[in-house]
Amino acid sequence: MNYDVFYPPSIKSALENDPPGAWIPDVPQGCIRLSAGYPAAELVPTLQLGASIEALLAEEKDLPLQYIGSHRAVMLRDWIRRRLMARNMPVAETELLVTAGGIQAIDLIARVLLDATATVAVEAPTYMEALEIFQNYTRNIITIPVDERGMCTVQLEQMLQQRAENGLPLPRLVYTIPSFQNPTGSNLPLERRRHLLELAETFDFLILEDDAYGELSFASDPATLKSLDGHGRVLYVGSMSKVLGPGLRIGWTVAPAELIQAINWFKKDLDHAFVEASISTLLTRLDWNQHLTSLRNAYRRRRDVMLQALDQHMPETVTWHVPDGGYFIWLQLVGVDTGALLNEALQAGVSYVPGQYFFVKKEQGRTFLRLSFSSVGEQDMVEGVRRLADLVRTRTLEKKGV
Amino acid sequence: MNYDVFYPPSIKSALENDPPGAWIPDVPQGCIRLSAGYPAAELVPTLQLGASIEALLAEEKDLPLQYIGSHRAVMLRDWIRRRLMARNMPVAETELLVTAGGIQAIDLIARVLLDATATVAVEAPTYMEALEIFQNYTRNIITIPVDERGMCTVQLEQMLQQRAENGLPLPRLVYTIPSFQNPTGSNLPLERRRHLLELAETFDFLILEDDAYGELSFASDPATLKSLDGHGRVLYVGSMSKVLGPGLRIGWTVAPAELIQAINWFKKDLDHAFVEASISTLLTRLDWNQHLTSLRNAYRRRRDVMLQALDQHMPETVTWHVPDGGYFIWLQLVGVDTGALLNEALQAGVSYVPGQYFFVKKEQGRTFLRLSFSSVGEQDMVEGVRRLADLVRTRTLEKKGV
Repeated sequence: MNYDVFYPPSIKSALENDPPGAWIPDVPQGCIRLSAGYPAAELVPTLQLGASIEALLAEEKDLPLQYIGSHRAVMLRDWIRRRLMARNMPVAETELLVTAGGIQAIDLIARVLLDATATVAVEAPTYMEALEIFQNYTRNIITIPVDERGMCTVQLEQMLQQRAENGLPLPRLVYTIPSFQNPTGSNLPLERRRHLLELAETFDFLILEDDAYGELSFASDPATLKSLDGHGRVLYVGSMSKVLGPGLRIGWTVAPAELIQAINWFKKDLDHAFVEASISTLLTRLDWNQHLTSLRNAYRRRRDVMLQALDQHMPETVTWHVPDGGYFIWLQLVGVDTGALLNEALQAGVSYVPGQYFFVKKEQGRTFLRLSFSSVGEQDMVEGVRRLADLVRTRTLEKKGV
Repeated sequence: MNYDVFYPPSIKSALENDPPGAWIPDVPQGCIRLSAGYPAAELVPTLQLGASIEALLAEEKDLPLQYIGSHRAVMLRDWIRRRLMARNMPVAETELLVTAGGIQAIDLIARVLLDATATVAVEAPTYMEALEIFQNYTRNIITIPVDERGMCTVQLEQMLQQRAENGLPLPRLVYTIPSFQNPTGSNLPLERRRHLLELAETFDFLILEDDAYGELSFASDPATLKSLDGHGRVLYVGSMSKVLGPGLRIGWTVAPAELIQAINWFKKDLDHAFVEASISTLLTRLDWNQHLTSLRNAYRRRRDVMLQALDQHMPETVTWHVPDGGYFIWLQLVGVDTGALLNEALQAGVSYVPGQYFFVKKEQGRTFLRLSFSSVGEQDMVEGVRRLADLVRTRTLEKKGV
């Protein structure tokens, strides 16, 4: 039977894109997984979670397994609001929605703001999962260059001015990961943050701030766009995925109450009372600042190990910037097609994510790749970088005809 | 700031409906909650879940908290497939998608099949959450009468024929709860099931079969539409909400692989590895058939208690049918506006769901209400029915001018 005839045009159009997760390399057993943006196993508070759930069920019995009634699940919202307040983001109850991960929050925001006629702007490169989402709604995606200090807001301004002058549609939404960006690791300086907020007022767009890595700084804490926003322009997305564990599927979005109400209209997985109550209980038993300090120290150390390995093993044609937080290092390999190289790398026992997946125009990412220093142990990480460097060197030599 | 200007027309239209959950009564503390379609507290295997999670985390450590890697989470799919097979629904891996509850599955199916130009058909009355979902996509909702034996398929056929003759759009999707329907408790006989499947072929529509209550039969097990479907017309939705607990948010949909792929395209909360692995572990420790038998016996007994209380206390103007499974009894109260009565009932200490919420045309539900016998203990249930009966009797007497 042909089901195509049942799909509305907008769905048919979305189904023409690459399928979800096309970027995930098919990593063989035993391969060193520098592709994975996962927390380190030893930094996931597994035992505390188990103990918390035991305490929760002893206290609340079946309530966290029902639709409503779990006090602990409700308390998660209070915890998140206190945490946001501590980061200069005072938020009313009606301005917060807990979601099943940050990605769902991005999808729900796209759902209420975008259709096939809408224009959205994203960084180039940007988070491939967000790109997948926006491509489900519209083909009108414009891109803003990113350098080692994040989104080039001057270029954004020029582009918006030109579009306005030429009568081209302006973006309704600008998606950005200002702090320790995925994939570049770049951190937007304060003056660019302020500039972006000014542009939102001038050109009347909303900003989707993805702050998945904002608390994982190795130096000073960046001020979120949300904390600087005086005009209700920012829709903020946070997540437990990088600071607790992604399999829990807990994220949130903060926005003006009217937008939160609209977003919640379309959230049909409902509240995940059991997981929310479990995490809420865990958070009463965890010193969050101490937990964050452990994460920062551990990931800073891993970053340093990876940087050292890169310095030691990579040929000079390969370049990168030092990230001040987050999970990733973004490599440029002059003259190497990282998409074509991936299979060889997997055979050589190391995985990465080819740059192409982080761009709307894939060819822009041809010579880039993303490495993650978050999840692999130090020894393996060094060995993974060495394997990759060997491969790159061979490839570069081949090119030179040696 | 006015955010309306940022919404696409389809979203603006959806936001004109009642907000989600408008049907949920604002139940005061201590009120007897005959409105709640929850499992009984003592039938939720809370302790076994706690023990299962302890075992899971000892075995798999951080893996269930990561994106992928939990063997137990994967095993849930196998368990569901074995269970479907036992109910004469052999299903390939590619034909199953685990969702965050049955409601999400309904929403995702609506997402890939409906837009503002599409027509969908639903039972009248039908599940109010499903109605909310369809109304988010289209205003073209046609309704099929339900009697004590479920959807009136003969009337559906007549309507479809008339629409075809008059050049009116035919539904792309027919949503039904054939077994122990919410809210009527009716069970579609085999001949109507076969008739509906024939109509799908003749009039070229797909069927969304919501089987949330299918395993909670008090007599014989009905054959699902999916098990009778020889032509790939049925998209099946199942759920753990009524047989384990809704706060876990575990459901699934079964459909031809092509449709499952399309549905998954838009599922952006990703896989809930932790909950899936937890439930999967629980299921290895639970004798499912025995668990179902306990549920059936307990809910049958509660149904009987409610029926007896209704017989004893309700005036003769109130009528109902005896459900052979599920959670609900559907009352008709001649001459009583159940929406208007609700506040008094809540003050008298009993809650129900007014009939209006189960209909596209709300006035059709004016004299109906839904009672749930699933979650309230026997004594409270009898007392709740007595309170409601007292109120109804007063109201009826008032009408008669006594």
